[in-house]
Amino acid sequence: MKIFDEAALVSGIRNGNRRALARGITLVESTRAADMELAQRMLQQLMPHTGKSVRLGITGVPGVGKSTFIEALGLHVAAQQKRVAVLAVDPSSPYTGGSILGDKTRMTELSRLEEVFIRPSPTGGTLGGVSRKTRESILLCEAAGYDVVIVETVGVGQSEYEVASMVDFFLMLMLPNAGDSLQGIKRGIMELADLILVNKADAGFEARAEAAKREYSNALHLLRPKYPGYTTEVKLCSALHKNGVAEAWEHVQTYLARLGSDGHFIQNRNRQLIHWTRRLTEELLLARLWEHPDVKTGWDTETARIRSGETTPVLAGQTLIETFRKSYSA
Amino acid sequence: MKIFDEAALVSGIRNGNRRALARGITLVESTRAADMELAQRMLQQLMPHTGKSVRLGITGVPGVGKSTFIEALGLHVAAQQKRVAVLAVDPSSPYTGGSILGDKTRMTELSRLEEVFIRPSPTGGTLGGVSRKTRESILLCEAAGYDVVIVETVGVGQSEYEVASMVDFFLMLMLPNAGDSLQGIKRGIMELADLILVNKADAGFEARAEAAKREYSNALHLLRPKYPGYTTEVKLCSALHKNGVAEAWEHVQTYLARLGSDGHFIQNRNRQLIHWTRRLTEELLLARLWEHPDVKTGWDTETARIRSGETTPVLAGQTLIETFRKSYSA
Ligand SMILES: Nc1nc2c(ncn2[C@@H]2O[C@H](COP(=O)(O)OP(=O)(O)O)[C@@H](O)[C@H]2O)c(=O)[nH]1
Ligand SMILES: Nc1nc2c(ncn2[C@@H]2O[C@H](COP(=O)(O)OP(=O)(O)O)[C@@H](O)[C@H]2O)c(=O)[nH]1
Ligand SMILES: [Mg+2]
Ligand SMILES: [Mg+2]
Repeated sequence: MKIFDEAALVSGIRNGNRRALARGITLVESTRAADMELAQRMLQQLMPHTGKSVRLGITGVPGVGKSTFIEALGLHVAAQQKRVAVLAVDPSSPYTGGSILGDKTRMTELSRLEEVFIRPSPTGGTLGGVSRKTRESILLCEAAGYDVVIVETVGVGQSEYEVASMVDFFLMLMLPNAGDSLQGIKRGIMELADLILVNKADAGFEARAEAAKREYSNALHLLRPKYPGYTTEVKLCSALHKNGVAEAWEHVQTYLARLGSDGHFIQNRNRQLIHWTRRLTEELLLARLWEHPDVKTGWDTETARIRSGETTPVLAGQTLIETFRKSYSA
Repeated sequence: MKIFDEAALVSGIRNGNRRALARGITLVESTRAADMELAQRMLQQLMPHTGKSVRLGITGVPGVGKSTFIEALGLHVAAQQKRVAVLAVDPSSPYTGGSILGDKTRMTELSRLEEVFIRPSPTGGTLGGVSRKTRESILLCEAAGYDVVIVETVGVGQSEYEVASMVDFFLMLMLPNAGDSLQGIKRGIMELADLILVNKADAGFEARAEAAKREYSNALHLLRPKYPGYTTEVKLCSALHKNGVAEAWEHVQTYLARLGSDGHFIQNRNRQLIHWTRRLTEELLLARLWEHPDVKTGWDTETARIRSGETTPVLAGQTLIETFRKSYSA
């Protein structure tokens, strides 16, 4: 990784320079201990300028229309003189190089706008790492003056919990096929949703979309509400024809205002800060572990011994953290 | 957690006692540092008795028929006087308490057999943690004399990579709907598969299943083979009617024999040991971090200061690992 000029980076981001923002995010995504320390110094300086965006999470199975929806929503929001950033969390990307937001093609109009910033999922590392990086990228976008930060994730298990735990509003897109067992497992995830949109309510699918809407509404009534006294609504939309998109955005704003006035908004944000702190602490420590010269040497020795059958992972692990313990404070 | 008698546990597992095995797995799943150390001592003693099972990973979207298939396969294998263990990796379970293998109902016959052991997904922790625990549970099952260890996961992103990286053979179940965009993203995952089974090839779906089979075969030809010179085959089956299950098992055995004779088998196993070592080392260190009394006190102080705005997660994280560094070697 090249050398970053810290002051230039911070002021570039503060001035809304997209290249500076992109470089800041690259820094946040680095797992080198030195980069991490620089990234954290940068974040520390930018912290006072964060927190003012609407953080919106969007999930749904591949093909449901997330990219199409984000394109439509982004254009709608940008037309109101708001700056929009789009980030992705793709749990498969650590290995495949990312499958979502590889398709900037679906966001052709949006990605051409000056006031829009689009960033694919970080590659490498665990979901926890990807999640920490995305959380910090949100903050960088805020420091760069973006008003709405959209975090897209594929609708698969734990990554949805991760994204739900870093946004203010979690939006779930569904296909208009009610009773589909493919979506049936979504119970746990539905509890995370602040709003469910049945997409593709067009082209002859209107009746099926209505049926799906009823089914999801019924299912939601059996679930614990996300906040006491709140109901997660189910609405129809057609991202392709840009129907229901403005209404959804209207709903987000009203809902967030209510969360704000009854204290949930700030409680959520605080809980998220604590969550981030835990992850960050762990990653800082692990970066120091694996970059320690004695541990690096020990790793080579131990893995060679595992291959030759002289030791086991159990003993090797203990040896490695013992090596770290001895030399860490030295 | 109750106190475990280490020697009794080890010999109980070695004797194939199911209660001892279940307790051993509970120990492996614990994240308390003291339990982890005991678990690692236990594993160290059992290591010489591990490695002899067929480790079979099974994935597919919810509803594809994994549980039904495992029931059929398990009964088939058990009828050949082999002992079968079934473990689950469910990436959503850390929060929801697990959605797969909650349905032992689908494995009613199998779960009644004396020589069969079924264990749901560990709850709590990150996917990485769940994965480390499952890997160690496989070893315990082997030490307890199980001949086949089946690891089930839902077909969602990173958890499939995790499971593929702990088994000898990775089996992917598919629905008989060719061209379904819901399955279309499976490119990366398809590269992990040693065999693809199009399930539900029955009840009038035979033609669609055949079409799906052709489509997947064609798709596979465009992908890099899992091992040079190997082809991932696509076969039909009906888990419900127990058609194609014996053939699939036959295929697994022939394939593994080939992997064995050309060295891939042992290479895979070694790579997996190294992967486990890395995870284990990290978890051992993090357990020590969070259980250190000074860090515990520091955590309470720092999170209170975050809530009151006196510090940021960035500074808090640095303070915490500095606290750990100072007192860790003391
Ligand atoms: N009919 C219809 N098709 C849509 C709609 N939204 C998206 N699509 C189509 O569904 C496919 C997948 O959309 P995409 O946005 O890439 O889905 P993603 O994988 O969730 O990001 C594309 O062919 C879109 O044109 C919609 O509202 N109606
Ligand atoms: N027709 C048919 N149905 C099946 C077959 N295998 C499973 N099913 C049904 O599909 C549904 C889901 O099966 P299950 O094993 O729970 O799927 P899992 O979620 O992948 O574990 C159940 O209603 C099963 O009876 C099959 O081979 N043919
Ligand atoms: Mg997309
Ligand atoms: Mg099942």
